[in-house]
Amino acid sequence: MTVQIDIDRLMGRIFALGKVGALQDGGVCRLALTDEDKQGRDLLVDWMTALALDIHIDGVGNIIGIRKGRKDNAPVMIGSHIDSVATGGLYDGALGVLSGLEIVAALNDHGVETQRPIVVVAFTNEEGVRFAPDMLGSLVYADGLSLEEALGITGIDGTTVGDDLARIGYAGDWPVGGIQPHAYLELHIEQGPVLETEAAEIGVVEGVQGISWTEITFDGTSAHAGTTPMRLRHDAGRAAAEFSVEITRLAEQMGESQVCTIGAVELHPNLVNVVPERAVITLDLRNPDEERLKAVEAGAAELLDRIAERREVGVKTRKLARFEPVAFAPAIVDSIEAHAAKLGYSSRRMYAGAGHDAQMIARMCPAGMIFIPSKNGLSHNVTEYSAPEEIARGAGLLLEAVLDLAGVAKATGDTQEATRQ
Amino acid sequence: MTVQIDIDRLMGRIFALGKVGALQDGGVCRLALTDEDKQGRDLLVDWMTALALDIHIDGVGNIIGIRKGRKDNAPVMIGSHIDSVATGGLYDGALGVLSGLEIVAALNDHGVETQRPIVVVAFTNEEGVRFAPDMLGSLVYADGLSLEEALGITGIDGTTVGDDLARIGYAGDWPVGGIQPHAYLELHIEQGPVLETEAAEIGVVEGVQGISWTEITFDGTSAHAGTTPMRLRHDAGRAAAEFSVEITRLAEQMGESQVCTIGAVELHPNLVNVVPERAVITLDLRNPDEERLKAVEAGAAELLDRIAERREVGVKTRKLARFEPVAFAPAIVDSIEAHAAKLGYSSRRMYAGAGHDAQMIARMCPAGMIFIPSKNGLSHNVTEYSAPEEIARGAGLLLEAVLDLAGVAKATGDTQEATRQ
Repeated sequence: MTVQIDIDRLMGRIFALGKVGALQDGGVCRLALTDEDKQGRDLLVDWMTALALDIHIDGVGNIIGIRKGRKDNAPVMIGSHIDSVATGGLYDGALGVLSGLEIVAALNDHGVETQRPIVVVAFTNEEGVRFAPDMLGSLVYADGLSLEEALGITGIDGTTVGDDLARIGYAGDWPVGGIQPHAYLELHIEQGPVLETEAAEIGVVEGVQGISWTEITFDGTSAHAGTTPMRLRHDAGRAAAEFSVEITRLAEQMGESQVCTIGAVELHPNLVNVVPERAVITLDLRNPDEERLKAVEAGAAELLDRIAERREVGVKTRKLARFEPVAFAPAIVDSIEAHAAKLGYSSRRMYAGAGHDAQMIARMCPAGMIFIPSKNGLSHNVTEYSAPEEIARGAGLLLEAVLDLAGVAKATGDTQEATRQ
Repeated sequence: MTVQIDIDRLMGRIFALGKVGALQDGGVCRLALTDEDKQGRDLLVDWMTALALDIHIDGVGNIIGIRKGRKDNAPVMIGSHIDSVATGGLYDGALGVLSGLEIVAALNDHGVETQRPIVVVAFTNEEGVRFAPDMLGSLVYADGLSLEEALGITGIDGTTVGDDLARIGYAGDWPVGGIQPHAYLELHIEQGPVLETEAAEIGVVEGVQGISWTEITFDGTSAHAGTTPMRLRHDAGRAAAEFSVEITRLAEQMGESQVCTIGAVELHPNLVNVVPERAVITLDLRNPDEERLKAVEAGAAELLDRIAERREVGVKTRKLARFEPVAFAPAIVDSIEAHAAKLGYSSRRMYAGAGHDAQMIARMCPAGMIFIPSKNGLSHNVTEYSAPEEIARGAGLLLEAVLDLAGVAKATGDTQEATRQ
């Protein structure tokens, strides 16, 4: 295939969108359904119009641009989101949507017609900062939540999704999930350090990790740090530290794909000279394999029993979140990997940390994701950065994968011309 | 010796003082140099007056009541404090001062004259809640801080010690430390669980533990909990947990007299799904033996180096406090132990957690302390409690120790009468 993306045009769109909600010291704040989000949406719609896409806004505000195929069958969908966190970067989400536009632009340039339609989607409220849950637009699209419920969600500013959609003029009337895709592809920055560390150019995403979040409370007895011998203590802080060390070691023994984080710790009374009576910690466990995730959860429960007995403290747990892993379609994963090899890009199979629209759309059709490196592994950060050549590789690979799935119907002479350059 | 203390009278004074600054649900708030402290001081002065003591207020507000001896030589001093923490109990401090008064009262009742004078002292600001440092009155008394510096200390309410002493009418003109004691004795509740747990009636205090307080900051790198493999993390929280577990284990290996507390932990950003970039913890190490305390401090430093390397994090330490242990005079310790045995009380030698006026006065004369059990080991707590029979044992033992040190000159017929009852 000889159609090629224009990296300058793609970068131009990334920077242009990055000016909408731009922060003084770099990065963007384009929270879902704010005025900044509206400005970003308007810009996207302008670009879609210029690319002659058939534009629809659905009931939850997802923006859908359709490029006709030779046949009127199920389209290949390319998507992501354009909302950001409060101190977000230019690439998270935007890359996936704007690469979709660039593919359409490249096909238009080269006069290439595909067998299947190609659809570019920007899903509403992927970040979930103002309105919970995150990945809202794709969740409703995949029928994981009713439209009515979604519109009724009240956010942190006291407004509802429905109100704010109407306010910014994106309460559309197109049926949510009305287009059943043939396949879904999403290009995204890795948001982690693996590709950079291993100098791999492409991450072939096999699926999304399962997540298990638990809050654990250790209840001991506060006591004077000077006058209470060690053997008479019921030290909630010590129990929490021992659990942290031991569950982390256990997780490491489960292999590379298991991660374990004790991200938050609160002691009470949290004073230098008082043995802590209470420790509350969070446990974040993730694994792409549900059985292994269950095994480490069971290991954590056993450890808690053992430590509660050893330190003579009480233990209470509360599930904060639990999602099963999502596996992307093997045919799509294999295809992405094969195309990367054909293009001469070094790649590595990997799992995504949860939180991409692709995992929702995977409920309704074969889906897949392509990752490119994130500098220093940073994301949700104003210094988020992927180099133009990295973006060019990702968008070029996305193009090949889309064309493979959509099927090329014909190419005009212009394309011949273009490929000779 | 046949003089005996009157436990009902002593309890009456404890409860009467406990009404000054009384909290609604029990306990007291009688912070140093507040109006409540003034009321407590006034009550104490009234009692001293009724007991015919020669009363002096020194420059730092210490209240000194002198009962003449047959000779005008160095007196036996009995002391403690009457200020409390914000949610204090009825016994911490008050017991030591009011037992001193009870001994004077018993001697008066029985018409007993001692060879040496007996002095009862209430030291200013032992708790150090409003003004740092704690043990201020006894520190200045023992010439550990100049009067001028002490009066200039600004507290948490923005006032100075000098201003507040003047305000409550306790800026005395008696020279601080003007009376060089022959010996100093202090009766105190244990503020720990050892006596209760071991069913010992009396704690014979051999000295005060050395204290080492250190704040330790672990500097790592924040990272996404889902996308950052374990081997690529610089997890400050994990480093802190490992240090906590390992230093505590090391301290336990140093023997019963070593205690170790990680009382405070702060993680940053302290979020469930972010690998902590910074962890700040406090380390409280105490040992009655300076060499052993130094050894565990060195062990902590080694551990920090090892963990910094293992987890690839930075480590910074900041000393918050460091006091060498204080050993009480062996002759006094032996005497207290022997008198306890003579009275038929079970006793145990032990070290005090730091924080008693006795450790300051030990700089100027032989000093000693007697502990009685604290229910559930609780102190600095409104539920602080020692039973009247426990208090009676402590005060009775204090009486014997005082008389031993002061020497009995004569007893009148009244005493003979009293002892026959």
